[in-house]
Amino acid sequence: MIEDRTIYIGNKPTMTYVLVTAARFKEGDPMVIIKGRGKFISKAVDVSLIVKDRFVPDVQIQSVGIVTEVMSTGHNGPSNVSSIQISLFKSGQDGHV
Amino acid sequence: MIEDRTIYIGNKPTMTYVLVTAARFKEGDPMVIIKGRGKFISKAVDVSLIVKDRFVPDVQIQSVGIVTEVMSTGHNGPSNVSSIQISLFKSGQDGHV
Repeated sequence: MIEDRTIYIGNKPTMTYVLVTAARFKEGDPMVIIKGRGKFISKAVDVSLIVKDRFVPDVQIQSVGIVTEVMSTGHNGPSNVSSIQISLFKSGQDGHV
Repeated sequence: MIEDRTIYIGNKPTMTYVLVTAARFKEGDPMVIIKGRGKFISKAVDVSLIVKDRFVPDVQIQSVGIVTEVMSTGHNGPSNVSSIQISLFKSGQDGHV
């Protein structure tokens, strides 16, 4: 299930997401996807770079995508919100590259 | 001069940066680079997507890069800050591509 690989960034402290992400890699997952919307985009970038720089040495940023999502919440009809999707990939997983 | 192509996102309103970026393309520049650090990363993404979706129809997101920058400000020595660099490219410029 691909969806299991995604961590959605929200109101929790940055380090909470860092530790969850690092744990995924420790459990053997070769790829984790970090997603954030609106004001949480900055935090999604922080989480990804802290994991890469300080927690899981052989993790690489595989791709970074930004898209506009249409949200249908609120009384004023649909509204647009920016989002980011960052794919982190751990090379050398299980001895493979 | 490549550096001239870069727009740094800061405290001004989002639409100010959108209009500056759109003007660059209107003047004939085929590429504009949007950069933001720390909390301005979210705004940099907003600016890029609003330009692409609503202001300059044939603009594409060519690349998105995230890196950790070391800042040497403050009394506590160097500190790390996340940054994003988004390259916007206008296809069909001057009839090419």
